Amino acid sequence: MPTIVVEVMPKAELLDPQGKATSGALARLGHGKFHDVRIGKRFELVVDGEVTDEVLEEARRVADEILSNSVIEDVVAVTVEGAE
Amino acid sequence: MPTIVVEVMPKAELLDPQGKATSGALARLGHGKFHDVRIGKRFELVVDGEVTDEVLEEARRVADEILSNSVIEDVVAVTVEGAE
Repeated sequence: MPTIVVEVMPKAELLDPQGKATSGALARLGHGKFHDVRIGKRFELVVDGEVTDEVLEEARRVADEILSNSVIEDVVAVTVEGAE
Repeated sequence: MPTIVVEVMPKAELLDPQGKATSGALARLGHGKFHDVRIGKRFELVVDGEVTDEVLEEARRVADEILSNSVIEDVVAVTVEGAE
């Protein structure tokens, strides 16, 4: 069955303390070339049947209204995986 | 500057209570066509300089050893964005 993947990240202008802590840990562990880490979410939703344009539109609405908090987060991608 | 995106999901054989709660909420709100929700993480790491094969290999190691917990999570993707 096809899966819709929704990716959500904290807004660029907001602090991301979890990401900041991870950046610090990477630096301490000798991986300082990776920095400004930000941590968001990745949702996988299994869909019944075919992913039509209509279904994808509904998924985008769900991503904006239910899966993310538009005050602090941006939906950065809504994609389809495993559609056969 | 290029960004490496690391995507981490809970292992398929493990319960994902947060995802289960989200599936329930979607069903109640009339979006039952989306089910079996699973919630993972999406990391963005900014990289100094070019992303060579070596840097990407180091990022994969960081993803496996630091950003994810291999007991309960799988790294599902390590990709490069915004490389110019």
